[in-house]
Amino acid sequence: MADGRKIRYYDSHGQSRSAADRRPADDQPAIGEMRLDLLTNEWVAIAAHRQGRTFLPPKELCPLCPTTGEMLSEIPDSDYEVVVFDNRFPSLKSPDKGWTLPEENGIETEIPAAAGICEVVCFTSDHGTSFGELSTRQIRTVLEAWRDRTRELSQLDFVQQVFPFENRGEEIGVTLAHPHGQIYAYSYLTPRTEKMLASARRYFARHGRILLDDVIKRELQDQVRIIAQNDHWIAYVPFAARYPFEIHVAPLVGVPDLTALSTAAADAFPEIAHEVLARLDGVFNIPMAYIAAWHQAPVREGRDVMRLHWQITSIRRAPGKLKYLAGSESAMGAFIMDMKPEQSAAQMREVTIK
Amino acid sequence: MADGRKIRYYDSHGQSRSAADRRPADDQPAIGEMRLDLLTNEWVAIAAHRQGRTFLPPKELCPLCPTTGEMLSEIPDSDYEVVVFDNRFPSLKSPDKGWTLPEENGIETEIPAAAGICEVVCFTSDHGTSFGELSTRQIRTVLEAWRDRTRELSQLDFVQQVFPFENRGEEIGVTLAHPHGQIYAYSYLTPRTEKMLASARRYFARHGRILLDDVIKRELQDQVRIIAQNDHWIAYVPFAARYPFEIHVAPLVGVPDLTALSTAAADAFPEIAHEVLARLDGVFNIPMAYIAAWHQAPVREGRDVMRLHWQITSIRRAPGKLKYLAGSESAMGAFIMDMKPEQSAAQMREVTIK
Repeated sequence: MADGRKIRYYDSHGQSRSAADRRPADDQPAIGEMRLDLLTNEWVAIAAHRQGRTFLPPKELCPLCPTTGEMLSEIPDSDYEVVVFDNRFPSLKSPDKGWTLPEENGIETEIPAAAGICEVVCFTSDHGTSFGELSTRQIRTVLEAWRDRTRELSQLDFVQQVFPFENRGEEIGVTLAHPHGQIYAYSYLTPRTEKMLASARRYFARHGRILLDDVIKRELQDQVRIIAQNDHWIAYVPFAARYPFEIHVAPLVGVPDLTALSTAAADAFPEIAHEVLARLDGVFNIPMAYIAAWHQAPVREGRDVMRLHWQITSIRRAPGKLKYLAGSESAMGAFIMDMKPEQSAAQMREVTIK
Repeated sequence: MADGRKIRYYDSHGQSRSAADRRPADDQPAIGEMRLDLLTNEWVAIAAHRQGRTFLPPKELCPLCPTTGEMLSEIPDSDYEVVVFDNRFPSLKSPDKGWTLPEENGIETEIPAAAGICEVVCFTSDHGTSFGELSTRQIRTVLEAWRDRTRELSQLDFVQQVFPFENRGEEIGVTLAHPHGQIYAYSYLTPRTEKMLASARRYFARHGRILLDDVIKRELQDQVRIIAQNDHWIAYVPFAARYPFEIHVAPLVGVPDLTALSTAAADAFPEIAHEVLARLDGVFNIPMAYIAAWHQAPVREGRDVMRLHWQITSIRRAPGKLKYLAGSESAMGAFIMDMKPEQSAAQMREVTIK
């Protein structure tokens, strides 16, 4: 790209891409910083330059559509299947060589580099569709892009974990309507991953078994929370769901991350993704705002006990009603659910799939 | 109250209250349940009966106003200063005698009792005001109510921590406009408290000092994040703030909880509360939606290392713009800040206080 960022095209069949980025080279935004919150021992990234980012542009000005005529978008080519490129307003940026994460040393420390990588994944060149409506081949190509990026980002020495995700819906602050997701490669273990790693390790030490394997065994036994299943994947509302609609999708043969999926499992993913998202949108017959998050084992530790799963959460509890994270959830992390997991699973199972 | 719940009046001068609740006795809602999320080892409370609760009633039907004529509210008396009563739609309820929290035992366990206490605190009988606009005497009475409830709830054998808080603003899902807060007494340590306790303990073991004491020393030294101060309290934007506007208010002499505050510190609280909330509302000259959370040491442990502070967070980052918790924050707990803490502190310091 003109300003030095990288773009990668993923195509389902051999295709050569050579279109040049004809835009003037913008300045790269300043690098942010990272601060350790001593009260919780958690890192907070500060990206003070992001306030000016593009906010819900009309379709004609969409930066994620292919370039047409004089409308020069982020994608130089006039068409594409799936592209991944460096985020123009990144929260995290590649640090200098030899960068390492400092330890807590008794004083509040600011690191003059919010180290990491932020990428944008365009799911399709079609502005008006959604991930769940893509063709089987298209979802398979997106999955391949996620796998490829996980593989490559895992090799960077400052990267501790790779997180592909999608935010969908204005209700959760999405600023671009074009179907897309993001990938964050963090230079630290995120609070949730740290907690999941500790739980998986303790579980293995106590019971000698992989935690997610036992969770899935329990779901298969109980049946009542399962909403979709095929030969390679299972989708269920977790036993202790935190959101009105929360779905976990996991491969039946556990793997640490997307790169370790068998080809058969990868090929079977679009089917379950279609069904899960159709059931979610079908509950109220409206497109549901959601966050879809790929939880993967960290790059350098816990790969023996942590297992890949795709977590989809929606804050919509009824048409016109959202679940807000107020005092208990936001300040204490203590979730209160207004609905039983078995109840939301039943609602999603009852949706008629076209 | 007619249905068996308790109401407590707090008055700034001796007053006898004897008004009877003339409403028919409603059924008490069913008790919820608690489930352990094995993936994170966190408890989730399920209160499936809460969906039917009152949603933004007009002033004439406000259940938190005093009773007038045939409009029978939650408060039987025709006037009050501050009242605290059991929540009609509680997320947590008093369990049977002898109840104890089970340990993780390798299988996903459901406890048929979301054990705890949920109370409502009405800050004033005046429907149209807000906590920050109350008189000094009124805020002092609210503080005394919080202290009294903390003292009493801490004595219940199933209670692990007491959490007084206020949600303000429709943007964060407040369903009643009348100025009020809530108190949750949890039967487990909440995820954030658990984390703060671990950090405070590790800090003490490493450095031999109380963590929050050192944090306050650093703020006094740096000055740039302080937004208000008097002889007994300090208010500052924390070094690693997570929200566009986040303020911590702490007593200069550290104490584990509200009950341990000196009378002088308690008497000096209304002044700093007034100033902090005026600065917060003054930034954009609009009433800011916020969550105000009292972090107290747990009832039975960590009282030697954990220190009381009042955390106010607002998700408004500009007029018409909210900060949403999307993928990184919601699914990974990894916060990205769009603004430097020093910047938001400066904005609040610049507000002219009437």
